[in-house]
Amino acid sequence: MRQVVMHAPGDVRVEQRDTPAILKPTDAVIRVAAACVCGSDLWPYRGIEAVNGPTPMGHEYVGVVEQVGTEVRDITPGQFVIGSFFTSDNTCEICQAGYQSRCPHLEFIVDESGGAQAEYLRVPWADGTLIATPELPDADLIPSLLAASDVLGTGWFGAVAAQAGPGKTVAVVGDGAVGLLAVLAAKQLGAERIIAMSRHADRQKLALEFGATDIVTERGDAGVTKIKELTGGYGAHSVIEAVGTQESMMQAINSTRPGGHVGYVGVAHGVTLPGTELFFSGVHLHGGPAPVRRFLPELIDLILKREINPGKVFDLELGLDEAAAGYQAMDERRAIKALLRP
Amino acid sequence: MRQVVMHAPGDVRVEQRDTPAILKPTDAVIRVAAACVCGSDLWPYRGIEAVNGPTPMGHEYVGVVEQVGTEVRDITPGQFVIGSFFTSDNTCEICQAGYQSRCPHLEFIVDESGGAQAEYLRVPWADGTLIATPELPDADLIPSLLAASDVLGTGWFGAVAAQAGPGKTVAVVGDGAVGLLAVLAAKQLGAERIIAMSRHADRQKLALEFGATDIVTERGDAGVTKIKELTGGYGAHSVIEAVGTQESMMQAINSTRPGGHVGYVGVAHGVTLPGTELFFSGVHLHGGPAPVRRFLPELIDLILKREINPGKVFDLELGLDEAAAGYQAMDERRAIKALLRP
Repeated sequence: MRQVVMHAPGDVRVEQRDTPAILKPTDAVIRVAAACVCGSDLWPYRGIEAVNGPTPMGHEYVGVVEQVGTEVRDITPGQFVIGSFFTSDNTCEICQAGYQSRCPHLEFIVDESGGAQAEYLRVPWADGTLIATPELPDADLIPSLLAASDVLGTGWFGAVAAQAGPGKTVAVVGDGAVGLLAVLAAKQLGAERIIAMSRHADRQKLALEFGATDIVTERGDAGVTKIKELTGGYGAHSVIEAVGTQESMMQAINSTRPGGHVGYVGVAHGVTLPGTELFFSGVHLHGGPAPVRRFLPELIDLILKREINPGKVFDLELGLDEAAAGYQAMDERRAIKALLRP
Repeated sequence: MRQVVMHAPGDVRVEQRDTPAILKPTDAVIRVAAACVCGSDLWPYRGIEAVNGPTPMGHEYVGVVEQVGTEVRDITPGQFVIGSFFTSDNTCEICQAGYQSRCPHLEFIVDESGGAQAEYLRVPWADGTLIATPELPDADLIPSLLAASDVLGTGWFGAVAAQAGPGKTVAVVGDGAVGLLAVLAAKQLGAERIIAMSRHADRQKLALEFGATDIVTERGDAGVTKIKELTGGYGAHSVIEAVGTQESMMQAINSTRPGGHVGYVGVAHGVTLPGTELFFSGVHLHGGPAPVRRFLPELIDLILKREINPGKVFDLELGLDEAAAGYQAMDERRAIKALLRP
């Protein structure tokens, strides 16, 4: 089968690999209907994260089940499924508390033999990781269902972790797909005011479409000052951090009022939080890898009812063979997010 | 009047100072009935925090109102009052949300002219900072009411921030007065299991009296391993950090299960939190200077009804003139907490 492989920063190729097979009785193998390039794929693409030899890529996926292992009960061949980038048994205490992304049976969906930017994908712990739709979805819903696999689920978790809701002013740091979908999530959760922090016209436009009420173009300390100006000097009740740098984390913490909530979902790179500053900020801090599985049933339902359209973040659609062009367009910020069709 | 003054690390003296007067119409002046030495007073005493010239000491107090300013409405001379170390207007959005310790009208109760380890104390924002008891309390309740002024309020906030409650396993890092009273708070809040981390027999004994169900003597990584052993490998649901060092913060974070809550109330000294480790921990983090004022009405009520006895943390009682001996006893861990009678 064809599989996207990163060889080095900036060097992404499509190669022939063995089609994955069932390795454990709890596995499923799916035929990928659509995959995509993630903002986190850009960390190694830009050389900020090491690339240790040829690495299969892709951790966001929707597809049709081809085969299941002998212990898989709920997922059956022929079903259309959506799953998360981390596997989960969905039965342990941690999963039952809604933290499937920290399940003791966690495996990253990508390993040395394959990832989701491919024709086929092996999914361990299929019953606890995948959700099947009641029937094959309409083709135009596939981008939105694909978004639920990671960026929507992650933005949603950020909004929930930041306790976005009625009466709240929410600020979003980061205008990538996750930040934009955090805006959508805050809107769905009933936030009163949603401030998107963005300096790119195309992203501002989508943020407003998703429910943003204000746009702030300033960053860092100037961004914090602006958020305070807009919130009676106090700061926002809820701030979602969707970047993962030192600057963005401090911007998020300092934009939050005392007693407010920071939901941080940008994968931390080189971040260290100063204890004294954090102590006196008085904020709540929660985040990490999103437990997408917790939110999937609700998100899929909203998509199938056409109440939300998160698929709008895909402003570039390519065949799998053109994956390198997708990485390049996102790296150069010509595209918000690239969808790949195998 | 007599006032405790720190001149340098290890050098605490009782000196004559001017009796404080009303400076602003929102002030009150109280005659201090009892004050005490705080664990945080030991930071400068031990030379870990700088002492910049002679510094009046003491931020925990109960007393009788002597005078009030012209704009004070709720507090009147002759009342017995308890207040917090930080002043608050108790009317702004931040106070109304329960974060009085971050009120825009915050002032530290200690300034260059005086502190609470003295005969008299000026309290700014008296209406928003002080709570009066319905009548003069019985003398034997004074230590407990004094504890409410800081260490009980702080331990309680730690337990609330860690979401201690029914069905929860709570671990407490730190066996000073705040840690011990966090045990008491967790018990009152209905926690199922309370693990006190302590290696001192006298403090273990008090922890058990306050409601601890388990004692763990290990620290650092060994302490984390022990907490995981006691919690099915997952970690505690709720962990209260009541020390403020790098080791204690990491011990608290790593002892908490994914999705669990860390309530941190030890004043951070030299702490930096590693972003990646925090991200993948999946914990909730909340803390800072306790909004004691939020909890005072409830805590005073529990004390007056004799349902809790937090005054037990005072295992040394001295006259104000003997303050230096109180600091020394706490520094050498011969006393948990020293009460001073002016």
